[in-house]
Amino acid sequence: MEYSIGLDLGGTNLRAAAVDRNGKMLDKVQGRTQYSEGREAIIHDMVDAIRVMRDRFGKENLAGIGIGVPGFISLQDGVIKNCNNISSLENFPIRDEIGRRLETTVILENDANAAALGEKWIGAGRDVNDLVMLTLGTGVGGAIISGGKVLRGVNGMAGELGHITIVPNGNPCGCGNRGCVEKHASATAIIAMAKLLGLGDNMTAKAVYDLAINGNPKAQMIFTSMGESLGIVLAMLINAFNFPLYLVAGGVIGGWDLFAPAMLEETSRRSFTYRLTQTRVERAQLGNEAGLYGAAYLPWSEI
Amino acid sequence: MEYSIGLDLGGTNLRAAAVDRNGKMLDKVQGRTQYSEGREAIIHDMVDAIRVMRDRFGKENLAGIGIGVPGFISLQDGVIKNCNNISSLENFPIRDEIGRRLETTVILENDANAAALGEKWIGAGRDVNDLVMLTLGTGVGGAIISGGKVLRGVNGMAGELGHITIVPNGNPCGCGNRGCVEKHASATAIIAMAKLLGLGDNMTAKAVYDLAINGNPKAQMIFTSMGESLGIVLAMLINAFNFPLYLVAGGVIGGWDLFAPAMLEETSRRSFTYRLTQTRVERAQLGNEAGLYGAAYLPWSEI
Repeated sequence: MEYSIGLDLGGTNLRAAAVDRNGKMLDKVQGRTQYSEGREAIIHDMVDAIRVMRDRFGKENLAGIGIGVPGFISLQDGVIKNCNNISSLENFPIRDEIGRRLETTVILENDANAAALGEKWIGAGRDVNDLVMLTLGTGVGGAIISGGKVLRGVNGMAGELGHITIVPNGNPCGCGNRGCVEKHASATAIIAMAKLLGLGDNMTAKAVYDLAINGNPKAQMIFTSMGESLGIVLAMLINAFNFPLYLVAGGVIGGWDLFAPAMLEETSRRSFTYRLTQTRVERAQLGNEAGLYGAAYLPWSEI
Repeated sequence: MEYSIGLDLGGTNLRAAAVDRNGKMLDKVQGRTQYSEGREAIIHDMVDAIRVMRDRFGKENLAGIGIGVPGFISLQDGVIKNCNNISSLENFPIRDEIGRRLETTVILENDANAAALGEKWIGAGRDVNDLVMLTLGTGVGGAIISGGKVLRGVNGMAGELGHITIVPNGNPCGCGNRGCVEKHASATAIIAMAKLLGLGDNMTAKAVYDLAINGNPKAQMIFTSMGESLGIVLAMLINAFNFPLYLVAGGVIGGWDLFAPAMLEETSRRSFTYRLTQTRVERAQLGNEAGLYGAAYLPWSEI
């Protein structure tokens, strides 16, 4: 039975899984290394996790190996150009080094793209070939699946939707822009708005959510504001792509009931394409497994 | 020698051309009908213009017939759903009716998409497979070419870039939104800004341009403002697509020297992808022939 191996280099640790052609996870293993131990330890751990899966299910049925990593990836070189979370991996030929140690080729992909591919394969997007996904976390990640494949652009940098301007003079962003959607509609933005409204200095997004569902009007305003910001960027994306499905992912979608009404109202106001067509804006379904499934799907995705 | 026939239903009249596989125009003919004469007259004229070309170059070498029309097109039905300029053509099976009279199939396409396809074929985009085009006229039209083909979306409504929000509380638009780029960076927007600045009530965009090149600071501000607005939307598009080329088209590009510096500065500030990559923002090259060439290219474009 054909299977593939996916590896997801997540925010705090890595996981590898063996998945069959129908999307059934056969087995999963977690890395043990702290990222702070540096590049060699991380790469050793990645190779190790993949080997464990391959030894268990055999080389003869292995369709391929896909790896999802954070940051901007140069697909031509198989290099992570910029990775804020794990800077030790930057500008190193990680794809070829892992391939050398495993004595095979591996496919490298941005983690947001891998997650969208996972949702397209067996998650909320399994009935469509075209979707856009926004992942709300510390920042806002984006990914575009067009014709069943990741839209990468010429440098593999397509889908940087978190840095789309939604307010020309909005909050400043480390990318050099002002008013990026990720500065107005991420977990970080929720916390910053809570501080601006005097709700507290070190709140979590979850704590702001709890205030809101318990009726705190300032906390509710924050989710309304976040929803409006998302609506602006969703309307843009719908006008540009006219795809059937737009997914919102990330831990913050736990607050869906609080921000979705404002989001959909704003989307409707700002996009006649949304009003005229059967466009769906929905929650992603695979949670933090999406990237793992998507990485495993990589060997099959470009067929 | 293989050739194809393209027909462009333009703002004031229609043109048909026979074009060979290399993009050489073999001949061209112009329709005679006023659009105000109604649907039957227009369709008769379209069929007539195509027949003239086909009679001249023969059926045996004809690769196909492409037709570019303004408005939103339902590709499945071959129907123009919404066409402000020629409302008599709305919700009529125009593709099938023309095909019936010509006893062959014809390909219908939105005129902005056809123009982008023309630029991709033999114009400013002939060395790339992926580009985005913004056409600045009365409104702002948009088109996306991805992998050498028009990105249509699920309803054929992709590329409605003129209605992307660039200022959340900007000028109101007939589409129901506020702050659409076409209300801040079109010929109409130039005229409206001139009125707001007290330059005159019934100026043309060209007259505002003439004031600006003669040193009028208010007129210059208008082009700077327009450039900044275009920069916001270009930065978004570059972040989303990471394509190699973004074309600006339409009569207003005569003012390129006045608005391009602010446009490119704003694009650079708002898109790290632009700053990090070899992204080109350039003028289209084919003028109002782009749609005619693109229509002729339609029969070859989906191969």
